[in-house]
Amino acid sequence: MRLGDLAKRLSCELRGDATVEISRVAAIEAAGPGDLTFVANPRYARHLATTRASAVILATAAPDVPLPSLRTDDPYLAFAAAVECFHQAPAVVPEIHPSAVIASSATVGARASIGAHAVIGDGVRIGDDARIGPHVVLYPDVDIGQRFVAQAHVTVRERVRIGDDVVLQSGAVIGSDGFGYVPTAEGGIRKLIQAGDVVLEDGVEIGANTTIDRAAIGSTVIRRGAKIDNLVMIAHGCEVGENSMVAAQVGLSGSTRIGRWVRIGGQAGTAGHLSVGDGAQIAAQSGVPNSVPAGAVVGGYPAIDMPLWRRVTAAVTRLPNLLRRVRRIEKRLDMGRPDGGQS
Amino acid sequence: MRLGDLAKRLSCELRGDATVEISRVAAIEAAGPGDLTFVANPRYARHLATTRASAVILATAAPDVPLPSLRTDDPYLAFAAAVECFHQAPAVVPEIHPSAVIASSATVGARASIGAHAVIGDGVRIGDDARIGPHVVLYPDVDIGQRFVAQAHVTVRERVRIGDDVVLQSGAVIGSDGFGYVPTAEGGIRKLIQAGDVVLEDGVEIGANTTIDRAAIGSTVIRRGAKIDNLVMIAHGCEVGENSMVAAQVGLSGSTRIGRWVRIGGQAGTAGHLSVGDGAQIAAQSGVPNSVPAGAVVGGYPAIDMPLWRRVTAAVTRLPNLLRRVRRIEKRLDMGRPDGGQS
Amino acid sequence: MRLGDLAKRLSCELRGDATVEISRVAAIEAAGPGDLTFVANPRYARHLATTRASAVILATAAPDVPLPSLRTDDPYLAFAAAVECFHQAPAVVPEIHPSAVIASSATVGARASIGAHAVIGDGVRIGDDARIGPHVVLYPDVDIGQRFVAQAHVTVRERVRIGDDVVLQSGAVIGSDGFGYVPTAEGGIRKLIQAGDVVLEDGVEIGANTTIDRAAIGSTVIRRGAKIDNLVMIAHGCEVGENSMVAAQVGLSGSTRIGRWVRIGGQAGTAGHLSVGDGAQIAAQSGVPNSVPAGAVVGGYPAIDMPLWRRVTAAVTRLPNLLRRVRRIEKRLDMGRPDGGQS
Repeated sequence: MRLGDLAKRLSCELRGDATVEISRVAAIEAAGPGDLTFVANPRYARHLATTRASAVILATAAPDVPLPSLRTDDPYLAFAAAVECFHQAPAVVPEIHPSAVIASSATVGARASIGAHAVIGDGVRIGDDARIGPHVVLYPDVDIGQRFVAQAHVTVRERVRIGDDVVLQSGAVIGSDGFGYVPTAEGGIRKLIQAGDVVLEDGVEIGANTTIDRAAIGSTVIRRGAKIDNLVMIAHGCEVGENSMVAAQVGLSGSTRIGRWVRIGGQAGTAGHLSVGDGAQIAAQSGVPNSVPAGAVVGGYPAIDMPLWRRVTAAVTRLPNLLRRVRRIEKRLDMGRPDGGQS
Repeated sequence: MRLGDLAKRLSCELRGDATVEISRVAAIEAAGPGDLTFVANPRYARHLATTRASAVILATAAPDVPLPSLRTDDPYLAFAAAVECFHQAPAVVPEIHPSAVIASSATVGARASIGAHAVIGDGVRIGDDARIGPHVVLYPDVDIGQRFVAQAHVTVRERVRIGDDVVLQSGAVIGSDGFGYVPTAEGGIRKLIQAGDVVLEDGVEIGANTTIDRAAIGSTVIRRGAKIDNLVMIAHGCEVGENSMVAAQVGLSGSTRIGRWVRIGGQAGTAGHLSVGDGAQIAAQSGVPNSVPAGAVVGGYPAIDMPLWRRVTAAVTRLPNLLRRVRRIEKRLDMGRPDGGQS
Repeated sequence: MRLGDLAKRLSCELRGDATVEISRVAAIEAAGPGDLTFVANPRYARHLATTRASAVILATAAPDVPLPSLRTDDPYLAFAAAVECFHQAPAVVPEIHPSAVIASSATVGARASIGAHAVIGDGVRIGDDARIGPHVVLYPDVDIGQRFVAQAHVTVRERVRIGDDVVLQSGAVIGSDGFGYVPTAEGGIRKLIQAGDVVLEDGVEIGANTTIDRAAIGSTVIRRGAKIDNLVMIAHGCEVGENSMVAAQVGLSGSTRIGRWVRIGGQAGTAGHLSVGDGAQIAAQSGVPNSVPAGAVVGGYPAIDMPLWRRVTAAVTRLPNLLRRVRRIEKRLDMGRPDGGQS
């Protein structure tokens, strides 16, 4: 595709030769002739002088560069669109593989693709245009909307309800039993029946090998448009709000309520029975012990306001020296130490 | 069911109208007419004034409330029992699906339910009343007791031994190879054969997508009644003691020995070759570098006694200010700083 | 096997009775008559006085012991070799199970073993001597070298390229979609097509339920000989260098570049778009915010040089007391506190 045509498709301003032929999108360090690359993260700008790419997507305000550029206010979005221009998605033939086991009481919409050895249980209802991979298991009475995508080895347990345009990556488990036990007077442990379910609203995407437990009573809910990465644990009774994004290996303890447009960094965890307000941000690896107000940015273990956490982590490296300094002051003042310890 | 009858079934004291009809158990914020709710965690007590529930399970000693109540010394246990009263478990018809692949040398007890595409290997022995979900894979020579429950996509590797009343959630992997390698003199890496096995004793429950590695030699052992949550990693040669509870995303390094009635919070980790004594508690996200005595309560990274850790995390937020205070003292005393640095 | 013969096979120096019969390798606390045990980690040496083992593998320089010993400079390597001597691997009959679904356009090398219900997609190419477990799913156009081993429930997504001698443990997902989204001007979220792939070079081993996401563009690459443990998350566009070892539950954010012979402890995490130099070591549970130089040893949250982190974690427990000491100095000097706070 010629760069000039691409500029039009991506709604970018063209600076440079419109006739350059582009056949691929590539990262700036890997790009060669015929490749379109991009700089959205400033730390890659230093590669602009040496890249062998034929053209680059750049912010409108970025300095001049020695190669043709496509200018836009949102280079990452234009990059995403460029990748789509060149991507050939695997062809999906609407076919129901003969080895799939589909209950006679299940109803499957038009143009469904159902992979080898998939299992569709009693009373399952699925909308149109489903793409169900091999080895997907849908337990009885699962209810699913339009354009469902499930990759190989997904498990959806009984009675889970799923909206339109939901994507489940391989190995995701939706509706496993919550972790609920009660010690008994006899010195044993009683399992608390997990009688609730899970609801995934429209546009939700769930990452590979992520687990979302069913509620003990009521529902665990992932609201419209929320995106959950790989290996995340969402415990029974949690709610994740609209368009929130939860990075890999995060763990939400039981009955955590996450608001809308919240961002949670990888490996962070929340204690149970707390809420995180709309638009809040939680840094990677944080441990959140208490509720977080809307719009707050928190980090650390335990999590506190991010600017304070940054100051604390800088100060903490000076602590061994500070101990020596205080001891020196005490000596100057001829003061013993209240703990009687050795400096 | 009438509230009076429910009080008898749950062995609770009834305060209020015995004729109220109850049809469901619901969380206090979601409950409406016809619902029984409960307050076990004090932070939900504020909802008692506004709940629309028809009745509530409460501690005997809790204050009077404006709605009928069932009183008991253990509201959470009564709640668990109430959920069971109203829960209709999915009907299980003892049926062996024709698509299951069962080795002729395998023996399966009475009344087994085996799901579609399950695979039962050579020499496997399974007790009575097994409920084996679709796509469960049992490798050769696995030995399993009575009332085994395995949800879809469970993997049990060769020679694993499983007791009675064990429950495995979807995607759990029992008996994967331990992570054992030795650098060689030739500059490569040699895999250490993982020749051992895994033992799950009676009443163990393993969460979704949790992995329990087989021992290099001997056994990785999960003792009677222990409960392991989702996405937990238990490395080769570990032992988890009776009735211990391990929350989600915990990682136990190789040869960790956990005692009885231990509780480990989510995302905590232990270094290898250490032991945790009976009844100890490890806070969520802690990093445990050394053995923990019986009954200890530890937290932090690295983990220390919990009361000290709480004081440290409170003090640490005052550290940036403390640095300024010490600098001010040094100035007053006309002392330079031993590190020659800038305040 | 007689101990003298074993000494020859393991290239160890024999000290003691060559005629002792050995039938098994066992851990020092579990060993009994007929067992060979070993001490590689010094913390187990105290068991040498009481072990019931018939012989022990020991460092050449270790003190005399009351039982026969095999001496070597690398007891762990000799232990690994001893385990192999006695291990009987499960017999693998090269058999293609009739329930496997193999596309007519796929090519499978000689002596392949393919388990029940495995699915081999269109255009897949697999080398000789493959051992593919039950329920393994290989999406279309996957390309795999010689001696491939995949345990039950592995998923390999479309176009992933795999070298020789690669081992995938159960539940591993290779090539799932990367977590890439762009907020749109209309207030929604757009999924960034993940058009790239994954490359696993020769000798790579991937742990159970680990997920390796495909790149948005280009490749996520695991270099020759690298070993990845269970439940690890490797995000889109990462590279892990030759012979590096990544312990369980580690998370690498997008575009992280790990050098050769790097060791990363369990549950550690890296921020994205950074590099870790050859031979670096990252302690368990660390959070790595910035690039790490070759050969560095870092730890902590956020990660700093390990010796400094050790001093910091020791000093931090003295912080509550330090606050009291500084307050006492201020009182002595009749200084108020700059923050006006209470001591």
